[in-house]
Amino acid sequence: MNIILLEEADFVTPRRVAIGGRRASHIKNVLKSQLKDSLRVGLLNGDLGSGMIVELAKDRVGLEVDFDRAPPEPLPLRLLLALPRPKVLRRVLAAAVTMGVKEIFIFNSWRVEKSYWQSPWLEARSLREVALLALEQAGDTVMPEIFLRPRFRPFVEDEVPQMALQGRAWLLHPAAETPLREVRGPEVSGPQSCSQRPVLVAVGPEGGFIPFEVEIFLAAGLKPVSLGPRILRVEQALPAIIGNFLR
Amino acid sequence: MNIILLEEADFVTPRRVAIGGRRASHIKNVLKSQLKDSLRVGLLNGDLGSGMIVELAKDRVGLEVDFDRAPPEPLPLRLLLALPRPKVLRRVLAAAVTMGVKEIFIFNSWRVEKSYWQSPWLEARSLREVALLALEQAGDTVMPEIFLRPRFRPFVEDEVPQMALQGRAWLLHPAAETPLREVRGPEVSGPQSCSQRPVLVAVGPEGGFIPFEVEIFLAAGLKPVSLGPRILRVEQALPAIIGNFLR
Repeated sequence: MNIILLEEADFVTPRRVAIGGRRASHIKNVLKSQLKDSLRVGLLNGDLGSGMIVELAKDRVGLEVDFDRAPPEPLPLRLLLALPRPKVLRRVLAAAVTMGVKEIFIFNSWRVEKSYWQSPWLEARSLREVALLALEQAGDTVMPEIFLRPRFRPFVEDEVPQMALQGRAWLLHPAAETPLREVRGPEVSGPQSCSQRPVLVAVGPEGGFIPFEVEIFLAAGLKPVSLGPRILRVEQALPAIIGNFLR
Repeated sequence: MNIILLEEADFVTPRRVAIGGRRASHIKNVLKSQLKDSLRVGLLNGDLGSGMIVELAKDRVGLEVDFDRAPPEPLPLRLLLALPRPKVLRRVLAAAVTMGVKEIFIFNSWRVEKSYWQSPWLEARSLREVALLALEQAGDTVMPEIFLRPRFRPFVEDEVPQMALQGRAWLLHPAAETPLREVRGPEVSGPQSCSQRPVLVAVGPEGGFIPFEVEIFLAAGLKPVSLGPRILRVEQALPAIIGNFLR
């Protein structure tokens, strides 16, 4: 937890918050903070700042807060992720959100086990919790949007082509002939001009896409790209590709 | 397991192997292979090829093997990793090896808990097992070398300067002013000329290096580089930086 994330409901006056539960216990037991200590805080979907501890009660911590700077810029990358098994889902969502991705579409694919769609981890509350922890880790405040698309064709045929028009769009595919260095592209130095156009990256399930799915993605405007001769797990491939767009 | 890794001891004749244990059970229970099926195999530290199943006994599988191509090129990246807690160590080692890193130095640092050095995961046998599983995932055969360096100064002052002379050498450091896009550098197209010079990347512990350690790394010839404004976990930062050197 590199910042304490605050929500509107935490405010008792415009500059004073009172928090309990997990955050209060973190401040007392992990950070072992004392009265008058200053902590890094962020307002959910708002600015970053600092909070001075003005109250340390049994199950409540009071902070006087001051917001003075904007959160990090969103990463201009839209992620399309074939639903992985639940444990991996949590891990890759955490990685994507920590790295600054703000738009994530979780979609169905032939090699996704049907039962994964019943996972309690897909409930809005669970997704939100994973995202909150990742924002606290990153030192970011801006909640990502996470969309579920349990039907492959309507998603890839009707929604994806529009997204692919907005910038470069890549399909991670081991058999692709385009090497990763072309994705990095000629780096434009100076202001973030053309690289600010959002990139789209689609990542398949363990075992990969079936040929028919690859065809539909190509028809939607994506270009296949390879991460090299080795076969990576989703939880390795995802940070590896996103890492190419960090600045 | 994307290949079955074979060792010299598995050979009963020059072209015939007999394997048991984990690998045999994978072939029978996960792949559900039948007699005459062909599987992808690799010879540890040797070539890749295929193996036809010629025997399916209760706890033994016989293969007739044929090696016909070299394993993927090693990734020209040398990794220096401050010892993370054991669970994370396994995960980041697996990621590094799966991505093709062949030289890994695990070193001590101020914010590394002393007890981590007692972990059974640091025993040669455990490290080897993690590496084997990662090679099987990657479809690679070449065992990485993993070195333990439990004393910080002798390592960074006496060994690292030589390594840093051989190519670009980066210290991952959140406060660094060099952005990641400079690490990607001007990409040289065509044959792998200059990018074949090994890159060195040093990754700190959770909580980062202390200023004194940063100084010693800089004196050893490393340049600090930032992964951006967000604070990543080691298991996210590592694939993210390695991803910048995949081809």
